[in-house]
Amino acid sequence: MEFDRNCMRGFPLEELTSEQDASLRQAAATCGAWAVTMTAAAGSGHPAGSLSSMHMYLAVYGVADSTPERFNERDRDYVVVSHGHTSPGAYAALGWYGFFDPEDAMAHFRQAGSAFQGHVERSVPGIDWGSGNLGQGLAAGVGFALAQKARNTSGHVYVLMSDGEQVKGQIAEARRAAISHGLRNITVLVDYNHIQISGRIEKVMPSNIRGLWETDGWLVRECDGHDPSGLYHALKEASASDLPTVILCHTVMGKGVSFMEGVPDYHGKAPSGELYDKAMREMDASRRLLETAKEKRKTGTGPLFVERQVPPVFVETGKPRSYDPDILTDNRSAFGAALADIGKMNRCGKGSPVLVFDCDLASSVKVDAFSRECPEWFMEMGIQEHATATTAGAASCAGVASLWADFGVFGLSEVYNQQRLNDINGTNLKLVLTHVGLDVGEDGMTHQCIDYLGLLRNTFGWKLLVPADPNQTDRMVRWALARPGNVCIAMGRSKIPVVQTPDGKAFFAEGYEFSYGGLDVVRAGKDAAVVCMGHTVRMALEARAILADSGVDAAVYHAGCPLALDRASLEPALRTGNVVTIEDHHVKTGLGSIVQGVAADSDTGDLSLSCLGVSRWGDSGASRDVLAGMDLTAAAVADRILER
Amino acid sequence: MEFDRNCMRGFPLEELTSEQDASLRQAAATCGAWAVTMTAAAGSGHPAGSLSSMHMYLAVYGVADSTPERFNERDRDYVVVSHGHTSPGAYAALGWYGFFDPEDAMAHFRQAGSAFQGHVERSVPGIDWGSGNLGQGLAAGVGFALAQKARNTSGHVYVLMSDGEQVKGQIAEARRAAISHGLRNITVLVDYNHIQISGRIEKVMPSNIRGLWETDGWLVRECDGHDPSGLYHALKEASASDLPTVILCHTVMGKGVSFMEGVPDYHGKAPSGELYDKAMREMDASRRLLETAKEKRKTGTGPLFVERQVPPVFVETGKPRSYDPDILTDNRSAFGAALADIGKMNRCGKGSPVLVFDCDLASSVKVDAFSRECPEWFMEMGIQEHATATTAGAASCAGVASLWADFGVFGLSEVYNQQRLNDINGTNLKLVLTHVGLDVGEDGMTHQCIDYLGLLRNTFGWKLLVPADPNQTDRMVRWALARPGNVCIAMGRSKIPVVQTPDGKAFFAEGYEFSYGGLDVVRAGKDAAVVCMGHTVRMALEARAILADSGVDAAVYHAGCPLALDRASLEPALRTGNVVTIEDHHVKTGLGSIVQGVAADSDTGDLSLSCLGVSRWGDSGASRDVLAGMDLTAAAVADRILER
Repeated sequence: MEFDRNCMRGFPLEELTSEQDASLRQAAATCGAWAVTMTAAAGSGHPAGSLSSMHMYLAVYGVADSTPERFNERDRDYVVVSHGHTSPGAYAALGWYGFFDPEDAMAHFRQAGSAFQGHVERSVPGIDWGSGNLGQGLAAGVGFALAQKARNTSGHVYVLMSDGEQVKGQIAEARRAAISHGLRNITVLVDYNHIQISGRIEKVMPSNIRGLWETDGWLVRECDGHDPSGLYHALKEASASDLPTVILCHTVMGKGVSFMEGVPDYHGKAPSGELYDKAMREMDASRRLLETAKEKRKTGTGPLFVERQVPPVFVETGKPRSYDPDILTDNRSAFGAALADIGKMNRCGKGSPVLVFDCDLASSVKVDAFSRECPEWFMEMGIQEHATATTAGAASCAGVASLWADFGVFGLSEVYNQQRLNDINGTNLKLVLTHVGLDVGEDGMTHQCIDYLGLLRNTFGWKLLVPADPNQTDRMVRWALARPGNVCIAMGRSKIPVVQTPDGKAFFAEGYEFSYGGLDVVRAGKDAAVVCMGHTVRMALEARAILADSGVDAAVYHAGCPLALDRASLEPALRTGNVVTIEDHHVKTGLGSIVQGVAADSDTGDLSLSCLGVSRWGDSGASRDVLAGMDLTAAAVADRILER
Repeated sequence: MEFDRNCMRGFPLEELTSEQDASLRQAAATCGAWAVTMTAAAGSGHPAGSLSSMHMYLAVYGVADSTPERFNERDRDYVVVSHGHTSPGAYAALGWYGFFDPEDAMAHFRQAGSAFQGHVERSVPGIDWGSGNLGQGLAAGVGFALAQKARNTSGHVYVLMSDGEQVKGQIAEARRAAISHGLRNITVLVDYNHIQISGRIEKVMPSNIRGLWETDGWLVRECDGHDPSGLYHALKEASASDLPTVILCHTVMGKGVSFMEGVPDYHGKAPSGELYDKAMREMDASRRLLETAKEKRKTGTGPLFVERQVPPVFVETGKPRSYDPDILTDNRSAFGAALADIGKMNRCGKGSPVLVFDCDLASSVKVDAFSRECPEWFMEMGIQEHATATTAGAASCAGVASLWADFGVFGLSEVYNQQRLNDINGTNLKLVLTHVGLDVGEDGMTHQCIDYLGLLRNTFGWKLLVPADPNQTDRMVRWALARPGNVCIAMGRSKIPVVQTPDGKAFFAEGYEFSYGGLDVVRAGKDAAVVCMGHTVRMALEARAILADSGVDAAVYHAGCPLALDRASLEPALRTGNVVTIEDHHVKTGLGSIVQGVAADSDTGDLSLSCLGVSRWGDSGASRDVLAGMDLTAAAVADRILER
């Protein structure tokens, strides 16, 4: 009787029959052969870890409510592969369950242009999170689980991990977050084969794996990771548990291939020739798999599948708040007020859940009002920024709006790679950075985030918004929350004046609508141009006044979307022939550098371009003193214009 | 009888007498008044945590062999303040022990231009590690302890931490590293007051603090953190322990000031007016402290002290190895060979210890030969990059040479903020990044470090070296290890040809000596210039050959020190009027951006400048295919030159 590949899905069975168990053992051998063939066809990859995890993959993809038909839906089970280098194992199991033709994976694994990257990516159907940098998967799983919980679905999350990565700190952070948020819908499987690249895990970096999970409050179960019945039993028990559960799966690295078993060298080495043939014999498979794969590899790079869909999210963002010209407030407060508005509106309406993440700075980053309006959507994560970045990112891919507010140094500098991986994963995170630039109050250099533009510029998808005042902040926040994609909004700490029109009205209020790109023409001018960003608009306006006294008519352009600056938007400024940029950011990696790039690329004729910004680690003091100490003043701007 | 402020140093006493105990309690009140006055004078800062830690500071600075006379020496005790926001407490205790005049700290705390930053910095005598971003201090302490152990000194390391930061993952990493390396010379004190910014730690992010330290193998002791005798006893016991010890010090936030005790709001709020006066009365101090401080504050920004000295390190770097033009090898192997040479030479000679850190990639990053030559200097850290970055950085400030080799994504992208903090701390780390750019083999986009230049450019001190071939790699490695400062050497994975002179000799061998700055003029040319970096020199040379067929004489300049490029070095290239840059790096944040900046800043006349680089997340495949897929080829370079 043929094995029903859906027989385990949703745990309908009390336990597996011996026939079902035997079928899955046979499937593991078949998939093992596919996985080893992938590495052999590519001439690289990670066969032994794939074999180690193979029964785990078959068990998890067998029970999870994530099928070839449903894997792109919003409300379902999610499966995260944290040890992304075991991609051949994951691809083989997904192939076996019909997500795609396994021959395509064997043919095109690690081939430039193919979907089947060396480490799992969301380009492959059934892969919910791209990984490869170890230690990140659990936090992603927590994000999916929080989103499913907020949506009141029955969705369960499975995270597969290696044992070597257990020492990575981010894992402990995510573990605590799961407990703190009362998650019951997450199960972790650890491939406990005791081998990492450099040898036995007990030698490379000893850790009490079981003890650490227990100490952080998880339910721990152990089983033979190559026993389908045991795995099914443990998964079923975990799915009904009141606590998040980790299953330590005792496995053998390279299981099923005698010369790979327990040999660290096969962590990342593909077998070839005689050894490949031997592996196939031992797994009862044909060596012709490889010939077929190699032939097919010559014909192209395989299917690219459908572009990963963004699960729809509906957020009402309401009407903007306007701040009168006589008001002095900080952008943080304007953000907090807009966010609280949005929370209130969507909580009562039909909007999607809006999850707001905080790392113990709620009152400083002004998400405290939101936390009072929508306590069930407020996600306190403690001082655990690495897990938070990944958790908030993953949540944003699972049917909720997701926003994380933190100081710039913590929300971006500290977790740059997590935000880079969010970009790779195509998440939809809204990242609000307060306390950027030197404008952090008296906290000093460790707290000065002078690299937010310079960091995000290394990615490809992140949008960066830098509001000039509270009115623009309000509008940018509402704009961002209504849209997919990763958007960062960066602001300083201080109270700042409302930007005004020449006739004293609020510039970014009535008649202003934010759209991404271009420059805000705050003042026209024909003799020179000051291009500013964020709160430095005040200095630019003051410089304009100083220059007017010298008979120089200087334009003031505000770059609220600096990463989108192009030749067309900068053309009028460059045409004046006398341009100064001013930014509360590292002078070499920010706005000035972008303007230089456009200028170098344009036929600008005779141009004087001078860039003012942060040129050393800053002092600790009142923001105005720290800025002045860095020569970031209206007078300095005017001097540069006049020096021409 | 006056209290002898050195009576505890080195633990000469069995226990404190009741008079000594009473004197220290009085000192805590005095220092508490100073600390609160600092925040009152500045109008900001963190008084309550400072009071909570005050007895701990007095105990630790009292027992530690780090005195006003010896704090800048190499072999001594080190004290790390991980909860850097309690700087007023640390400054007060240091003042009390005579490191400087406490009046200066009271007058100039958080004043722009002063040494007394809001979070502790190494600009203040007695502060061994600048912190403020929580969770980083233990890893720094481990670095100091490893260095002292490698130097065979009796130096002990004390780390003071808060309880709120205990959930940060990096701490767990550092804890395991201490056990794994058998450290006995480190003692941690946790200020266990149960309060963090957002409330009680049990509510914000629950964690089993004692259980986590025990599970990771540390000896745990508990004591009353406001009891000098108990603290002395616990510290003495810890100093003699065979295991690293953590002392959980039970404290009261805001201890000694009734209205601050246990009130989260005073985490970061300075008292003023009546409340300040009340605080002084309760601590038996004069409210005139504040008047004096305010008066003095008007007179300047206080002493800047002596620039922190780099403890001398002597590393023999030997003679360069030369690779013949007919050899095809990878830069990683050239690095590994040079490092093994240096290890061997210094191990037998009189050189300083050379500590080499690895995160489970020894054979891939080629530090395996070194690990065999110098096993006692080889620091295996497991997959724990955050702790490693900080540990390796701190070690480099304590009398050893310190080098960390890792894939680019792990050694920099993942730990960008730790490398930024190393810059702020003025460390002397040598960071060798292999697998940078798209040249990572088939590992795919998560492993492609296309931002190494773009990231380091956000700092002020880091030097970046990008070798063109194995010969230049060898010379750069030897150069870097002989010098202080933070230096990163970035290289790809593939075997590459030796760069040759026009007459077929090795370009970077005989007659070549590396010095920092400038461009390598690989080929002169008058019609156009290709400016390349690292392995793209091969494409540049091939493009030159293609162009020669079209009658175009193109120069080839190699930028081995891209962050040092300036107008003078680029002038000859720009003068050709037709420049193409090519880099295996994000095209917007790397070499091209630097050249654009110089061009925008120069009077270049009619210039065509075109930049080739990485413009999307890369494919997974053979490096040459991945590069070609990104249009990074000799043909593309030639086309751009000819398009002009």
